[in-house]
Amino acid sequence: MSTAEQPTPGKRRGRRPGGQDTRAALLDAARQIFSESGYEGATVRAIAARAGVDAAMVNHWFGGKEALFGQAVLQLPFDPAELLGQLMDGPVGDLGERIVRRFLTVWDATDGGAFPALVRSIASHELAALSLRDFLIRHVLENVVKRVSPDRPELRASLCASQMVGVGMGRYVAKFEPFSTTDVETLAAAIGPTLQRYLTGDIG
Amino acid sequence: MSTAEQPTPGKRRGRRPGGQDTRAALLDAARQIFSESGYEGATVRAIAARAGVDAAMVNHWFGGKEALFGQAVLQLPFDPAELLGQLMDGPVGDLGERIVRRFLTVWDATDGGAFPALVRSIASHELAALSLRDFLIRHVLENVVKRVSPDRPELRASLCASQMVGVGMGRYVAKFEPFSTTDVETLAAAIGPTLQRYLTGDIG
Repeated sequence: MSTAEQPTPGKRRGRRPGGQDTRAALLDAARQIFSESGYEGATVRAIAARAGVDAAMVNHWFGGKEALFGQAVLQLPFDPAELLGQLMDGPVGDLGERIVRRFLTVWDATDGGAFPALVRSIASHELAALSLRDFLIRHVLENVVKRVSPDRPELRASLCASQMVGVGMGRYVAKFEPFSTTDVETLAAAIGPTLQRYLTGDIG
Repeated sequence: MSTAEQPTPGKRRGRRPGGQDTRAALLDAARQIFSESGYEGATVRAIAARAGVDAAMVNHWFGGKEALFGQAVLQLPFDPAELLGQLMDGPVGDLGERIVRRFLTVWDATDGGAFPALVRSIASHELAALSLRDFLIRHVLENVVKRVSPDRPELRASLCASQMVGVGMGRYVAKFEPFSTTDVETLAAAIGPTLQRYLTGDIG
């Protein structure tokens, strides 16, 4: 079965009727399909077909393709759409600091989580790099930028990404000192204004 | 004759008397010794001994341990000490922009050079990460920072490193668009002020 692009109407593939089995099967299928087709090329329908479940299960369990990608591939311990809402909840002038604080708090909780593995896979596989790029830039940062600045949102999003990827590298992978052990508030105060300028300020 | 701590007097290891053979042997030996002992633990004497040449050859061919590390391990197409001199040659207020411009110009010339391979090895091998951290932070950026700011030079150097590693990741590894194709002057203008603030400005 697998990539079946036209599910037989009326025929529910009942191999995994629901529950944690469905969720796990969707995560497995998502990793395969995203890896084969990239973020843009992957469809909810193809992932559900590979998992042998109805496409509605993706929305039921994950809320959509973005969140499934976040959990299956990036292994983000949060829902990107929910995160966006939380980041936007507060003064625009503190947005940069909120992004840094939030990023560090989430990843610190698992000592970098999947970040080091992600970097390895980005450095080795072009497709993973493409998926990350699509997702991080287009579906997270550009969404933030477009809400606060009409000027060159793609470049601004890239600039934000460059700083945050560097923060992850320095804190969890290359482990710069004192960077990897500095408290979150000190780093949010130091790096927040960088994100803020990239988001809403003068970038030349 | 350099840092040789106690060379056996009168006993020159003549296996490779000089020329390009000596240089290549030193590069090989340096890669081994830096990998075994890290940047701090490696000595010029140990590298020369492994290469079977006199320790004076390290200064003769590379000018010292730093430059040897830069060429053998980081495969930098320049001498770090010379680079430092060039970066400091100009107004302190433009230092951030000079760092970004210089970094991008050097690495762009070889489409990222060894940067992607370096990231792979950092993500896989703790020792390589330690070497990079030692070298990049202590022997390049801290040297710059200490010349312009007495306040928390280690943190400032780490902050600079986080942005520049992120620039390398975004431009040469994950290839964010439009980041990976934006011209150097646009990026120097956008990112230069970040480095400038990390070097000499208010970091909270």
